[in-house]
Amino acid sequence: MQIGVVGLGLIGGSLGYDLRRSDHQVWGLSRNPATCDRAIALGICDCASDVITKIPDLGSTDLIVICTPIASILPTLGQLVHHLSAHTVVTDVGSVKEVIVASAEQLWSKFVGSHPMAGTALQGIEAAQANLFSDRPCVITPTPQTDPNALALVKTFWQELGTKLLECSPQNHDLAVAGISHLPVFVSASLISACTTEPNLEVLELAQALASSGFKDTSRVGGGNPELGRCMAEFNHAALLLKLDRYQASLEQVISWIRQQDWEQVEDFLTNTQSDRAKFVPLG
Amino acid sequence: MQIGVVGLGLIGGSLGYDLRRSDHQVWGLSRNPATCDRAIALGICDCASDVITKIPDLGSTDLIVICTPIASILPTLGQLVHHLSAHTVVTDVGSVKEVIVASAEQLWSKFVGSHPMAGTALQGIEAAQANLFSDRPCVITPTPQTDPNALALVKTFWQELGTKLLECSPQNHDLAVAGISHLPVFVSASLISACTTEPNLEVLELAQALASSGFKDTSRVGGGNPELGRCMAEFNHAALLLKLDRYQASLEQVISWIRQQDWEQVEDFLTNTQSDRAKFVPLG
Repeated sequence: MQIGVVGLGLIGGSLGYDLRRSDHQVWGLSRNPATCDRAIALGICDCASDVITKIPDLGSTDLIVICTPIASILPTLGQLVHHLSAHTVVTDVGSVKEVIVASAEQLWSKFVGSHPMAGTALQGIEAAQANLFSDRPCVITPTPQTDPNALALVKTFWQELGTKLLECSPQNHDLAVAGISHLPVFVSASLISACTTEPNLEVLELAQALASSGFKDTSRVGGGNPELGRCMAEFNHAALLLKLDRYQASLEQVISWIRQQDWEQVEDFLTNTQSDRAKFVPLG
Repeated sequence: MQIGVVGLGLIGGSLGYDLRRSDHQVWGLSRNPATCDRAIALGICDCASDVITKIPDLGSTDLIVICTPIASILPTLGQLVHHLSAHTVVTDVGSVKEVIVASAEQLWSKFVGSHPMAGTALQGIEAAQANLFSDRPCVITPTPQTDPNALALVKTFWQELGTKLLECSPQNHDLAVAGISHLPVFVSASLISACTTEPNLEVLELAQALASSGFKDTSRVGGGNPELGRCMAEFNHAALLLKLDRYQASLEQVISWIRQQDWEQVEDFLTNTQSDRAKFVPLG
């Protein structure tokens, strides 16, 4: 196939490595000309440009994967559609789906939303690596409007990359990631904020000296990239607010048991969360 | 010195290894006779018993370290005091201090509270290891009633074990650990609870399939030992409730910005938590 990758960062670059190894023709598009040169030098793309009209043989493109930050996905698609052949299928890799898919399928009838759950702590083309997607979950979010041939092609594409494919509505995707991915950011950030607002300076300094693995792990995602956290909230705010409500209710419940000094209930609660956690992640 | 270790689990056992290596005489006391035999076989103690009166030459003991679970510290001290010489200093390793120290110094005038911040994910005598305390913080919590000679001896004891010694009031200790150690347990457990109470079964199963490193780290301490979490709440509930109030206020604030769709404020909040976190734990 001829495949276009728009946005040559960690995800787009890693896709390029795997696709060229499988003998696909890959072109790249990036706002930054230096990134285009680097992508060709690294072997990520056969050709790359910062201007869509300079891509040779653009009309033969079978599939375009938009790998830009969330906020740029729709503007990017809005520009691309003026240059595409009617048969070209477009997908994206954004971590929210409802707001993206609803508009994207209006802009392009052969659009299918995707979300591969892959990444590292690093960003940018230099962090790209082969086999990033192997054995990782990838969610595809078709709607009643989705073109069946476009869906089939996008499924084949992710399967060839070795992902574990899941399929659901954009709404259910956003609810699921709101809980396990977006909610933890705000739960964790509020922990840092609560510990930082300690008015007694001796206690604050003591806490800073004593903070250990429990604080470190629980605060990790709340101390992560602020722009990414903001995008999660901005593009998935309805689902996130629903999960935050549910979180506040759980927290209120355990606080009321602590206030009532009902230690049996507190221990039962923690016994349940211990066994429930094992249904989400391996022990450890 | 002649040193007694009461409670031969991870902490007591690890103390034994280090103390004997420094040529101290070590006796051990455990409720479980098999643990006493094991401690002698492992080289943790010179002698050990499940009955205090069977410890040879008990009256020459310079220092006793109580390493039982929190709930057993005061009952254990209450039994010990009937058998000790007046010069014997007693300390403990409990992770809460105010309720322990207030009663313990009534029971024994040469009591000094300690809290070494060391541990592993494992429990019990088989998990004991040499050098567990090396370079770890250890907090000593004297009060105006503390005997100066007892304090000096306990300080020397922890310094010889290689800990980084800190000193503060029992109250300030409990406030500091309430924030960085006890609060994370309930913040984290409430996350698991909120994700588990998803009423839509497809969303719940999807969330379980997609949960990844963010959920894993943020939920780790909330999926830990329920009895330990209960003890944190039970023995430090005033400080914990204060921190939970502060946590709810931080969470309410960021929720209100999300509700108002004030993304600049959300990003500023996350920018602050990112830099504040670095004051507690090394980056990563």
